[in-house]
Amino acid sequence: MKPALSVIKIGGNIIEDSTELSRFLSSFSRVQGPKILVHGGGKKATSLSEKLGIKPSMVKGRRITDAQALEVAIMVYAGLVNKTIVSKLQALQCNALGLSGADAAVIKAIKRPVKSIDYGFAGDIVSIRTKTLLSFLETGLVPVFCALTDDGQGQLLNTNADTIASELAIALSSEYRTTLYYCFEKPGVLANVYDEASVISHINKQAYYSLLREKQISEGMLPKLENCFHALDHSVHKVCIGDITMLQAKSSNFTTLTL
Amino acid sequence: MKPALSVIKIGGNIIEDSTELSRFLSSFSRVQGPKILVHGGGKKATSLSEKLGIKPSMVKGRRITDAQALEVAIMVYAGLVNKTIVSKLQALQCNALGLSGADAAVIKAIKRPVKSIDYGFAGDIVSIRTKTLLSFLETGLVPVFCALTDDGQGQLLNTNADTIASELAIALSSEYRTTLYYCFEKPGVLANVYDEASVISHINKQAYYSLLREKQISEGMLPKLENCFHALDHSVHKVCIGDITMLQAKSSNFTTLTL
Repeated sequence: MKPALSVIKIGGNIIEDSTELSRFLSSFSRVQGPKILVHGGGKKATSLSEKLGIKPSMVKGRRITDAQALEVAIMVYAGLVNKTIVSKLQALQCNALGLSGADAAVIKAIKRPVKSIDYGFAGDIVSIRTKTLLSFLETGLVPVFCALTDDGQGQLLNTNADTIASELAIALSSEYRTTLYYCFEKPGVLANVYDEASVISHINKQAYYSLLREKQISEGMLPKLENCFHALDHSVHKVCIGDITMLQAKSSNFTTLTL
Repeated sequence: MKPALSVIKIGGNIIEDSTELSRFLSSFSRVQGPKILVHGGGKKATSLSEKLGIKPSMVKGRRITDAQALEVAIMVYAGLVNKTIVSKLQALQCNALGLSGADAAVIKAIKRPVKSIDYGFAGDIVSIRTKTLLSFLETGLVPVFCALTDDGQGQLLNTNADTIASELAIALSSEYRTTLYYCFEKPGVLANVYDEASVISHINKQAYYSLLREKQISEGMLPKLENCFHALDHSVHKVCIGDITMLQAKSSNFTTLTL
């Protein structure tokens, strides 16, 4: 049997709150076996933009990554957030290696093609250099990815962290039995969005389709679940969605997704 | 004989100017054999601080890294400057891996002890994890270091880029015949600081001492040369000081230092 690998993505709200972040990193550092962390940016980029007097660029109600927004994203995601996490993990004896997709050319992307909207410097993932990642994991390093990639031609690109996590998990499933964790502020997928006790403990593809038909899935959760089943359809073993208690050995209060 | 290694440090003025930076990176990408780049931060950190209304903290005429200055340094050095360089090098088929000292715990430092001045979050290098660096170099990766380290206890520290370069060169001299390059805006060590044609082509230790006695070395060059002879005293094969033409095969207009 292939060895196990954990690919864990943390959301912006956990990064925001330094106590929550410390609690998360402490749990993360105790996860056994090879593992990868992917982090979003959170509101720090928004607050830096505001301080610099940069207004968010919007087209048809969608946020666009213009040149200024990209520069802020690079400073906050690859700089402040990534290095803070790496340093804190090192203090927990977890040998973190901070990465953007450009580093060691691990993730190659293209600037999102313009259809009805020009998203600016937004990247869609094209390929993952699995061999390089394997060599990092085999030497005991713990890759920590920020939500940036590049196009191999010198252009950095803002890239969705959920997608980075699922594409990494898919690419590494050839060598590992991969579990993908989406860790955010809610305890899991909720049957009733207003009731945090209504966590659905297990969703398979059949249940997913019936939740879709019954329009039971909240707006924000839809792309997340789509991403999860895309990963499961591409050889990822299991996907888990929950809050930071999910990574603790005794926790059972989260949502597990399988085919 | 040991294989050759180039450790190349570029100064802030080259980073400032995007045309100069592109010219430098193009030369750097053509340097044969294993190599490491170390970059300073340049004035981008100062200009970001100004935009954010952060005043530089000074004690006894010395610049101090307070918490705000450290945050700016992390965003600019590890974020904007490092990832821009990494992405540009990837476009030149140079497999760059951006690093701070915290990443893979490659450089361990301590907060500079307070004597007459408290420099704040300034780091002095304690040790280099040579084995990890060797494994990166052996797989063809090109480490690109920004001027940040950490103390292994979760505290990032602002660290002199010249010192990072010389300590890396020293640590790797056990395995490589290492040449250390200091690449800045001047063509080398000048006999007359006002005359750029007065490059001293070779300085050995004896010549260095006589330049010191004659007070011929400019204020700004003194710590640089001290650093160079410290490296040579600790097994570094050769140190070269010059502008970006220095890395070109046919260039001979720069200063070489040997014992």
